[in-house]
Amino acid sequence: MDVRIAACQIEISPGHPDVNTEKMLSLIKQAKADKQDIVIFPEMAVPGYLIGDEWENRAFVLDCYRYNEQIVASSDGITVVWGNVDIDKEAVGEDGRLRKFNTAFVARNGKIAGRFHKTLHPNYREFDDDRHFYSARKLSGEKDMDIEDFLQPLQIDINGRERRIGVSLCEDMWSDDYTIDPIETLLNNGAECIINISCSPWTWRKNDKRHRVVKDRLKDHPVPYIYVNNIGIQNNGKNLFLFEGNTTVYNPDGSVQNIAGDYEEEVLHVDLQNNGGKKQEKKTLSNHRDNEELLKGLTYGIRKFFDLIHASKAVIGMSGGVDSSLSAYLLCRALGPGQVYAVNMPSEFNSELTRGLARQLAETLQLNYGVVPIQEAFEFTLKQLGNTAFERLDGSGRRTELELSPVVRENIQARDRGSRVLAGIAAALNAVFVNNGNKSETATGYATLYGDINGALAPIADLYKTEVYELCRYINSLEDKNIFSDQLFEIPASAELSDEQNIEEGEGDPFVYPYHDRLLRAFIEFRRDPEDILQWYIDGSLEEMLEIEVGLVSRLFGGHRDFIKDLEHTWRLYKINFFKRIQAPPIIVVSKRAFGFDLRESQMGIHFTRKYREMKKELLKQDH
Amino acid sequence: MDVRIAACQIEISPGHPDVNTEKMLSLIKQAKADKQDIVIFPEMAVPGYLIGDEWENRAFVLDCYRYNEQIVASSDGITVVWGNVDIDKEAVGEDGRLRKFNTAFVARNGKIAGRFHKTLHPNYREFDDDRHFYSARKLSGEKDMDIEDFLQPLQIDINGRERRIGVSLCEDMWSDDYTIDPIETLLNNGAECIINISCSPWTWRKNDKRHRVVKDRLKDHPVPYIYVNNIGIQNNGKNLFLFEGNTTVYNPDGSVQNIAGDYEEEVLHVDLQNNGGKKQEKKTLSNHRDNEELLKGLTYGIRKFFDLIHASKAVIGMSGGVDSSLSAYLLCRALGPGQVYAVNMPSEFNSELTRGLARQLAETLQLNYGVVPIQEAFEFTLKQLGNTAFERLDGSGRRTELELSPVVRENIQARDRGSRVLAGIAAALNAVFVNNGNKSETATGYATLYGDINGALAPIADLYKTEVYELCRYINSLEDKNIFSDQLFEIPASAELSDEQNIEEGEGDPFVYPYHDRLLRAFIEFRRDPEDILQWYIDGSLEEMLEIEVGLVSRLFGGHRDFIKDLEHTWRLYKINFFKRIQAPPIIVVSKRAFGFDLRESQMGIHFTRKYREMKKELLKQDH
Repeated sequence: MDVRIAACQIEISPGHPDVNTEKMLSLIKQAKADKQDIVIFPEMAVPGYLIGDEWENRAFVLDCYRYNEQIVASSDGITVVWGNVDIDKEAVGEDGRLRKFNTAFVARNGKIAGRFHKTLHPNYREFDDDRHFYSARKLSGEKDMDIEDFLQPLQIDINGRERRIGVSLCEDMWSDDYTIDPIETLLNNGAECIINISCSPWTWRKNDKRHRVVKDRLKDHPVPYIYVNNIGIQNNGKNLFLFEGNTTVYNPDGSVQNIAGDYEEEVLHVDLQNNGGKKQEKKTLSNHRDNEELLKGLTYGIRKFFDLIHASKAVIGMSGGVDSSLSAYLLCRALGPGQVYAVNMPSEFNSELTRGLARQLAETLQLNYGVVPIQEAFEFTLKQLGNTAFERLDGSGRRTELELSPVVRENIQARDRGSRVLAGIAAALNAVFVNNGNKSETATGYATLYGDINGALAPIADLYKTEVYELCRYINSLEDKNIFSDQLFEIPASAELSDEQNIEEGEGDPFVYPYHDRLLRAFIEFRRDPEDILQWYIDGSLEEMLEIEVGLVSRLFGGHRDFIKDLEHTWRLYKINFFKRIQAPPIIVVSKRAFGFDLRESQMGIHFTRKYREMKKELLKQDH
Repeated sequence: MDVRIAACQIEISPGHPDVNTEKMLSLIKQAKADKQDIVIFPEMAVPGYLIGDEWENRAFVLDCYRYNEQIVASSDGITVVWGNVDIDKEAVGEDGRLRKFNTAFVARNGKIAGRFHKTLHPNYREFDDDRHFYSARKLSGEKDMDIEDFLQPLQIDINGRERRIGVSLCEDMWSDDYTIDPIETLLNNGAECIINISCSPWTWRKNDKRHRVVKDRLKDHPVPYIYVNNIGIQNNGKNLFLFEGNTTVYNPDGSVQNIAGDYEEEVLHVDLQNNGGKKQEKKTLSNHRDNEELLKGLTYGIRKFFDLIHASKAVIGMSGGVDSSLSAYLLCRALGPGQVYAVNMPSEFNSELTRGLARQLAETLQLNYGVVPIQEAFEFTLKQLGNTAFERLDGSGRRTELELSPVVRENIQARDRGSRVLAGIAAALNAVFVNNGNKSETATGYATLYGDINGALAPIADLYKTEVYELCRYINSLEDKNIFSDQLFEIPASAELSDEQNIEEGEGDPFVYPYHDRLLRAFIEFRRDPEDILQWYIDGSLEEMLEIEVGLVSRLFGGHRDFIKDLEHTWRLYKINFFKRIQAPPIIVVSKRAFGFDLRESQMGIHFTRKYREMKKELLKQDH
C-alpha cells in the first residue's frame, strides 16, 4: 500500500477534552502540511480513559463527543482516526444511563467515514470497561448479527484506490482469553492493514508480549499493523498508571519496522510502501531494560503527578534508611533538588549512623535539608496520655487509665513525624509530602497509620524491599561516584522506633526480605494461597516456584512447625493489614499487581482452606 | 402448587465458607424435620459476594466449591437451592483465569439436580460481576444458543408431580435496562413458580421498587414468586454495605404474601397452596420509614463492623457539635455505652458552650468520658515549626523558613487531635477510633487529612449535614427526654479552629447547608454537572430540581455572578478534594451513591463544558 501515515503518540490529559483536542488539531494541520494520507491518534484521545465514574456525567460526555465536530471539520484532504466516546441518545446502557461506546472514529473530507466500537472489554486489574461502555459485541447481539459479520474493515478511497483498513481498539488485539478474535475477523473480512489504537499502561515486558501477539495475529494474513498508544499518566485515585507510548509500526511479517520512544510525544511516519523494510535501529525496543525502565517510569510518574496536582515542591522525611534515600533521589531527579525539602526527625532511638547517612545523601543530592527532632514532643505526648483517665458517667465512678505499651510508644513517634512535623511543614511550604513506604511494608502493615503511611503520593510502594535495594544499586552503577553510600546496603533495615530496633546492635525489621518478598509476591501478584505455598513446600518445589536461592527455606526455618507458623503469620499480616491500605496514598504502579484499585480487597478476616488444614495436620504429625 | 418451602434469610459471613455452610446444614436439617419440600438460601450463600479479588484465589474458590459436597449430601428427601461459585476447570474466564460462575445450585436426594448461572451481571455502583464471573449470557453465546432457549426452568419431581421452577439470581429480575429478560424467558418456558436468590444490599426504598418490579413481571404470567435475600454486612474496603434481608413471598398477582424482618435471621415458611392468600400483617413492609430504617441500619452496620474486625471498644472525639453527638449516640446504641470512650479536646478556640454540650451529652449517654486539652501541644508545634529552617546544600547557603498561615494553624490543631490524641488513646485502649465526618464535608474536603479525617470507620459519612440534623431530631422524638440538647440545633455548625469560627459570635462553616447539600447531592448522587445546574438556574427550575425551598436561591446570591462564583467554587471543592477521600476511612453506605468504591473517582482537575462556558458568558452579560 502506498499510503503515508502519521501515527501520533500524544500525551493525553484525562478529563480535559479541550486540551487534548487542541493538540490533535495542531497535529492534523501538520500532517496535512506533510502530505500524509492518514493521521492516527490513540484510544480515548479526546476524553482520556481512566476517569472513573465521570463517564456518568452526561454533560461531560456530550461535551467530549461534541469535540468530534472540530476534528471532523479539520479532515479535509486527510483521513483522521481517533479515539473518543460515542453515544446513542436513543438507547440506554445496562446501568440505565446514556449508552456510551469506546470508539475509534474515522473522518475524511469533513465527514465521519466510520465508527468502530471496541469489541473486547477488559474487566480485570484497573479496567472497568463493561461498567462504562457498551461493546460492539453486545450491539451485534442486540441487532441479532454474528460478530463475524458485524466487524468489517473501513472501506475508504485513498489516492484514488479503495482501501480496506481494519480498525480496532486496544483489547481487541489481546483476544487470547476471549471466544471472539476481532483482529482475525477483520483480516478474514479483507482488511489490508490493521490499525490498533490503544490507551495501554506500561507493565513489565508488555511490549515484548505485544510483539509476539502481533506476529501471531499476522501469521496467516501478512499485512502492515500499526499500534498507536499514548503517553502520560492516568489514575483512579489509589493507583497511578504510567503510559509509556511505544507506538509501533509492524511489517506484514510481524517484525518491528519502527517504534516510538518512551514517555515522549512523537509522530511516527509510516510509509506503507516500505513493506518489509527493516527495523529502524534508532529505536531501542522497550524490553529487558528493567531497572532503566523502572527508573525512567518512576521519575516520569512523579513529575507528571506533581504537574497534575499543580504542585512543584516536595517534602520528604529522610531517616537515612534505604527507602527514604531512594525516594529523595527520585524526587530530585523528577523535580530538581531545589524543589525538594528533606527533613530528618531524630528521636533517642535514631543512630548516629543513619543520621549521618541522611546528611551525607542530602549533601550529595544538594537538596534543602532540615532537622526537626521529635524527642520533646514524643515525651510530652507520653506524659499527657499517661496522665489521661476516662470516667464512666453512669454514676459508678469507674475510671480507665491509659497503658502505653512499647508498640503504642513506637507508633506515637511515627505519627508525630508523619502528622505533626511532615504534614505541618508541607502545609507551611505549600508543598506536597511524599510517602516512602515500599511494597513489603504496605503488604504486611509494617507501618503506622497517620504516621509513615501518610503522604500525597507513594512513589516506591509498588517495589518490594529487595527491589528497592536493587534499584539503588543500579543507580549507583550509573555514575562514577556512588549516590548511595556503601554503608546503606550493609546496615540492617530498621524502623528505629525502639531499643529493640537498634541497628548498631544489628537489629532490624522482622522479615527476611529475600524470602518474604517472594512469598508476598506469590500472594499479591500471582494470586496464590497458603494452600499453594504449603503444597510446594511439601513437594519440595517451593524455592523453585518462588524463584529464591536453593537452601534458603531450610536455613530459615527449624522445621515444619516453624515454617507453617511463619506462613500463617505472613498471610495474616497481609490480609488483616488491608485496613491500613484503605487509607494509604496513591501508588505508582510498576508491578503486575498493585494495591488499590488494581488489586481490589475486602476486610473479611482470615480463612484457611480445608485442603490447607488437612495438609498442615499431616505435616505436623511428622514433626513428632 | 402444594409445595412447602422454607426460605432461609441467613447472615452471610463473606470469605468464610466454613461458617456459612455449617449454618446452612443446620437449617437443612431443620427443614427436613419440618417436612419442607424445598429449602432455599441466598445468592453466594457459601462464599459471600463482595469479597473483591479474592475471587482470583483459585484455592479459595475451589474450597468454596467443595463445600457443595456437604450440601448435596444433606439433600436426601428435600430439594435444596443455594448460591455458590461454580467453576469450569476446562475453560478460562476473559481474564485468563479459572472460569467462574455466580450460580444457583439445586440438589435433591444426594445429587445435583440443576445449576443456573446468573444471566445479567451488574457492573455499576459497587458491583463488578463481569470482572469475576462468566454469565449465562456469554455461555449461551459460546454454545451458539439463543438465550431464550438456554434459560429453562428446573424440572423436578415434588411429591410425585413434575414441577417446573424458574431459578434466577438477583439482577436477573432487574432487567429493565438489558436486552434480555430472564424472568420473562423462564415464564415463557413454562415456569410455574419463580425463585430469585439475591445478595442485595439495602438502599433507600429498594423494597418498594422491588414490589413494583415483581408485580410487573407477573402481570402476564401469574405464578408464585419467592425472593430470598441475606442479612449482614459486606464491604470492599472503602464502602460497607448493609444487607437488610426482607426476603419476600409474593402471591401470583404480585402482592406480598409474607416478608421477613430487617437484619434478622429468619426462615419464612411458604405454603404455595395458599396462592392468593392475603398478606400476613405481622410484617411491616420496609418502606417509607426513612429515619427508622436509617437508624436501624447505621446501628447494625457499626455493630457488625466491630464484630468483623474483632473490636469491642470505640474511641471518639466529642466536640459538642452535631456530628460527634450523633456518632457518640450511634456508638452507644451499637456497642453499649460502657464500650465507648469519648474525648473532648479543647484548644483556646473551643467555646464553653460546646464543651458544656459535650459533657452534657456524655452524661446523658453514660459513656466513658475524658478531656485532653491540645493547647500546649499546639503551641509547642507552632514554636518548633516556626523555628525550623531548611538549608540548601548546594553551597548557596540559601535558607527557607516556615510561615505558619492561619489555615496551617487550624490544620495543626485538627491533626493534633486526630493523630496524636485519638490515635494514641485508641492504641493504648486496644480500641478502634471512629471518624465523625458527614457527607457534606467529605464532599467539599472541609476536614483535615490526618486530622478529623482519621478513623477506622466513618459511620455518618454518607449523611449530609442537613440529614445529620434530621436524624438527631428523629432520635429526640423517640424518647420522652431529649437525647440531644435543643441548643445543639441552634448554634452554628463550626469547626472551632480559629477566632473566625467563633460560634458565640454566630460564626461557623462556610456553607449554607440547605442549599449546598442539595447541590452536592445533584453532583454526587444524581451525577449532574455544573452545566445542568446553570441550565436549571437559567430556566428558573433550579429550586424545583434540587428540591429546595422556593426563594432560597435568590436570597442567597446577590446576582448571577455571585451564583456562578459559588457554583464553580463548590464544584472545584468537590472535585479537587478527592485527594482527601483517597485516604479517608470506610463509609457505611446509606445513600444512592457513596464516596469510595461505589463512586469511583480520578484525580484529574477541573473541567467546565463548552456549553457551560457559553451559558455563563451570556448570563454575565446580563449582570451589567
